[in-house]
Amino acid sequence: MKIEKPKVAIQGIRASFHEEAAIRYFGENIETIECNSFKQTFESLKKREADYVVMAIENSIAGSILPNYTLLLDYGFPVVGEIYLPIQLHLMALPGVKFEDIKYVTSHPIALRQCVDFFDEYPHLKIVESSDTAACAKRIRDEQLTDTVAVANALAAQLYGLDVLERRIESNKRNFTRFLIMTQHDNVEKKPANKASLCFQVSNKVGALAKVLNIFAEEGVNMSKIQSMPILGKRNEYNFYVDIEWDEQKQYDTSIRQILKYTHNFNILGEYERHDDEPSSTPKPHRAERSIRKYINIRRNA
Amino acid sequence: MKIEKPKVAIQGIRASFHEEAAIRYFGENIETIECNSFKQTFESLKKREADYVVMAIENSIAGSILPNYTLLLDYGFPVVGEIYLPIQLHLMALPGVKFEDIKYVTSHPIALRQCVDFFDEYPHLKIVESSDTAACAKRIRDEQLTDTVAVANALAAQLYGLDVLERRIESNKRNFTRFLIMTQHDNVEKKPANKASLCFQVSNKVGALAKVLNIFAEEGVNMSKIQSMPILGKRNEYNFYVDIEWDEQKQYDTSIRQILKYTHNFNILGEYERHDDEPSSTPKPHRAERSIRKYINIRRNA
Repeated sequence: MKIEKPKVAIQGIRASFHEEAAIRYFGENIETIECNSFKQTFESLKKREADYVVMAIENSIAGSILPNYTLLLDYGFPVVGEIYLPIQLHLMALPGVKFEDIKYVTSHPIALRQCVDFFDEYPHLKIVESSDTAACAKRIRDEQLTDTVAVANALAAQLYGLDVLERRIESNKRNFTRFLIMTQHDNVEKKPANKASLCFQVSNKVGALAKVLNIFAEEGVNMSKIQSMPILGKRNEYNFYVDIEWDEQKQYDTSIRQILKYTHNFNILGEYERHDDEPSSTPKPHRAERSIRKYINIRRNA
Repeated sequence: MKIEKPKVAIQGIRASFHEEAAIRYFGENIETIECNSFKQTFESLKKREADYVVMAIENSIAGSILPNYTLLLDYGFPVVGEIYLPIQLHLMALPGVKFEDIKYVTSHPIALRQCVDFFDEYPHLKIVESSDTAACAKRIRDEQLTDTVAVANALAAQLYGLDVLERRIESNKRNFTRFLIMTQHDNVEKKPANKASLCFQVSNKVGALAKVLNIFAEEGVNMSKIQSMPILGKRNEYNFYVDIEWDEQKQYDTSIRQILKYTHNFNILGEYERHDDEPSSTPKPHRAERSIRKYINIRRNA
């Protein structure tokens, strides 16, 4: 079955990084369902209002979003895909607004923190935190704020009609977020899986985890992620979140059958096609140089 | 050397969870240095304005605070201790204020999210997010807000003279945050270490990590935490953050010597005494029951 125009539930509003990830995965022809929380996206899937959920699971700077693993376990909808999105942050304002007229910068606190080197050079700008990068861009448009810039993605500038004053102001150019795609359609068109996300516990004996990893190693299965997570209220017991990759299905099947002997509460969160398209860093002038140049230009024009 | 009244740098203001952790670790007799960011706490240590930094590193619901690992690596100050703090959240207001007069709830977004079950019962309350639980309590005192409650710890209620209207409104009673203690005094009084925090890379061959874990297992060294962290811009290369615990120094020494053969960029973030005092859950009436009872009482009094 192929859904012509899939309904995709995301946390946040249109033109957020979540929608950008959805468009990269499904293409332009989607219907975005805006939700207030990650939990609501799963509710939307449960009620069959949405065909898919696209949800961030980890960021290369901020790390795993562990509560989202809990949602995966609680709802049990399988992961059917993944996508890596480079986090590129731009400074945007209403058309015609000049940088020297700006008094306020608004964005999500994590986005703002990722641009700290840029804003260090402009200490007169007041920071206004908000819960969503795209919502900040939208607010500038809706309220016609001529003294405020937003930090958001290119999609937000485009959708809400803002001009980009400065591109790529994020301090770390190689930052990306990984998103997972969930569905409850069991007959969606699917490419052969070569990656799986697992969650399991091992006995709390010294060396129990090493046994599991040895099995993967012997079968030539590559582990691309491992994370221990203490179980609330249980001393020395852990959930392990593990991502593995393989070339041939047999390697996966054999290793899973063996590790079941050494694990309990074993869950396959999903089996899906690996997304290899990690962001490459496009060569560009050094940020500080560009900002200073820009600033000089602005001052000349002033 | 024992410092009589240690100067302890924390992110946030007095009576925050960071100060609570500092007091639990050092006792009441400390001088707290309030900082705007985690980075600033390390700067304060570097300039010798502070004797110690106390910094959150992971939470049992939210997971690791990965940027703080980066700070540990960047500054190189050793971890000399750890402490686990149960996150107990109370509802507090100016003395004399009644729950039925409340229109606004203010706190840190993560604290608010941890009380979502409680606030679901009072949908008329408007949420006001802020960057620090203690700062919310302080603002109620400073601005004498009679229509606002804060969600914060008992220390904040005490320091800023607020009354606790409802105790322990957090949804998960077994949530705790782990804090690390750093110093640059190399001659501080120190108990014998039985735990270490390590950071290293292994070759990206399948099974390389399993080799390292096997060595720990063979020496009887327990691994209490493992987390892989992709290295920015390098495909299939990872930093591993690993915590290990041992009974006899010899176990640690022998395993470290052996794993150095299989790792590179090996860093010992610190060797310190394990803090075993994880929070026990104190039996209490079920939250929902208590809230309803309270609400009934309030309505009766009204």
